[in-house]
Amino acid sequence: MKALVVGGAGFIGCHLCEALLKEMEVVCVDNFSGTARGPVSRLEGKAGFTLCQADASVQKELDRVFGAEAPDQVFHLAANSDIRRSASDPEIEYRNTYTTTFRVLSCMRRYHVKRLFFASTSAVYGDKRGVVLTEETAMLSPISYYGAAKLGSEALIHAFSYMDELEALIFRFPNVTGPGLTHGVIFDFIHKLQKDPGHLQILGDGRQTKPYLYVTDLISAITGQMKAVKPGVSLYNVGARGSTSVKRIADLVCEEMGLWGVEYSYTGGESGWKGDVPGFCYCVDKIRATGWQASLSSDEAVQRTVREYVRGQKQMGTGER
Amino acid sequence: MKALVVGGAGFIGCHLCEALLKEMEVVCVDNFSGTARGPVSRLEGKAGFTLCQADASVQKELDRVFGAEAPDQVFHLAANSDIRRSASDPEIEYRNTYTTTFRVLSCMRRYHVKRLFFASTSAVYGDKRGVVLTEETAMLSPISYYGAAKLGSEALIHAFSYMDELEALIFRFPNVTGPGLTHGVIFDFIHKLQKDPGHLQILGDGRQTKPYLYVTDLISAITGQMKAVKPGVSLYNVGARGSTSVKRIADLVCEEMGLWGVEYSYTGGESGWKGDVPGFCYCVDKIRATGWQASLSSDEAVQRTVREYVRGQKQMGTGER
Repeated sequence: MKALVVGGAGFIGCHLCEALLKEMEVVCVDNFSGTARGPVSRLEGKAGFTLCQADASVQKELDRVFGAEAPDQVFHLAANSDIRRSASDPEIEYRNTYTTTFRVLSCMRRYHVKRLFFASTSAVYGDKRGVVLTEETAMLSPISYYGAAKLGSEALIHAFSYMDELEALIFRFPNVTGPGLTHGVIFDFIHKLQKDPGHLQILGDGRQTKPYLYVTDLISAITGQMKAVKPGVSLYNVGARGSTSVKRIADLVCEEMGLWGVEYSYTGGESGWKGDVPGFCYCVDKIRATGWQASLSSDEAVQRTVREYVRGQKQMGTGER
Repeated sequence: MKALVVGGAGFIGCHLCEALLKEMEVVCVDNFSGTARGPVSRLEGKAGFTLCQADASVQKELDRVFGAEAPDQVFHLAANSDIRRSASDPEIEYRNTYTTTFRVLSCMRRYHVKRLFFASTSAVYGDKRGVVLTEETAMLSPISYYGAAKLGSEALIHAFSYMDELEALIFRFPNVTGPGLTHGVIFDFIHKLQKDPGHLQILGDGRQTKPYLYVTDLISAITGQMKAVKPGVSLYNVGARGSTSVKRIADLVCEEMGLWGVEYSYTGGESGWKGDVPGFCYCVDKIRATGWQASLSSDEAVQRTVREYVRGQKQMGTGER
């Protein structure tokens, strides 16, 4: 078996490549636009691992990889990861999130590859506060260009799955956290507090509340479900118990960094930025019915991420400049 | 007031330009890829009408039009119209259906145009036989590349509407018929019978059953609803009473053409081609609650289309070669 991981050098992609490599050959494709080459390079030289630099939004670059590598299954995680940035430039989502999906599917069609995993997102639902989000929730209305490009990608997968007989697994990710994190609120808070340990500026009113999932829990869900993927499209919300507010994240970061009496200031408003969904409540009954569940709650996922991040920086001798 | 009609030279676009021209200036943009220049050229020279050749999937071409014309509202109907053809080349939908929507929205964002009409389709639902399709039907899963590109376009409109404060009206069209029709089952049957009046080949088993809407009924719905469009996205199914099977269309075409005893043959299978939804049942209560209703039933719409088409050909001296 050979897996192609598109966007495999990103935060989640690296963990996925590492896990898949225990069971099969892995080809990691990335354009290294959003990520340092660092994390995935620790896999270079390992038996069964191949790293290809290619832009998945460019058909001929992806054709080259499919032609040379002939994968049996594809894990498509390539997307814009800086959602705040695309709020001022929707072209980023058109190219990096939607077009990459179209190109991956077009290659699968041409090279007769039938199994696909796709990383979707809670952002496809839009702002549906007061509703428990299940896979059957109607009237999806994303409020970010990112969410729109992911929902458009899901629509493509439905059509290609029918027309080209794919077996496709779609997970709608919540916030994902853990070792190797490169952006997001936890990452930002640690870096802000390292610069100024007495004060922390919080975007919004701090009450934005979302579920966080520890990355290795997510990886076990992906690899487990892909073993049993069925014809057509299987779609799941994935998440852990509970959810964590931005204020609570600030408290956990301060606690893990050993900082007391930090003064918080708030930029105000219910969202961190325009297009950011302030909170959602995820139903994960469907995936739990398959036997999978997260080992860490949302709060525990946040706490462990901070602890490991800070410890990692201390070992590297960075972080306290 | 100035309206920009993107894809305005197509079958529905022509009727829309003509109707809008009674009340405002109209700029028609088309690349004339799918249509003869003929039908819309009858509007050329009329006061308030401008015709621009531009490819709406190319940002700089559309920028030029927005910059020069400064429209107050946009009617976006540009899309691939030959759905059978894109079944063997999904790139057509990526470019002509999805990308045109992204480009139109990007221009609206940059040029601060706030009112949009978008032509969506029943194909966004996928194959949901046994379900009455309402705007709140969940788990949309298009089975054609066309339906996927339209659903992706709807997702874009939700996000741009939120981020850029648009007032957007989306109609999910059923099959639309009437004068100027350029393709589809009615068009095909007439042409087949003109070539061979003794025999008609029918794609599928003839039991595919869908609602047909007469084009001027659709235009009255569009122009009426756009006058009262609200902030955010308003989404409606549009349709007439009843639906019409392909076998019934064959009977109506033969009757209107004065042909009796035509032998039918069927290619078999429940769909005309892969990706064609064999039938659907549309709930149009939401739009009827606004006071609009179609003047013709589905059968009447088909019948009148055939009658006018055949009469038009006789007047033009074409059709009976």
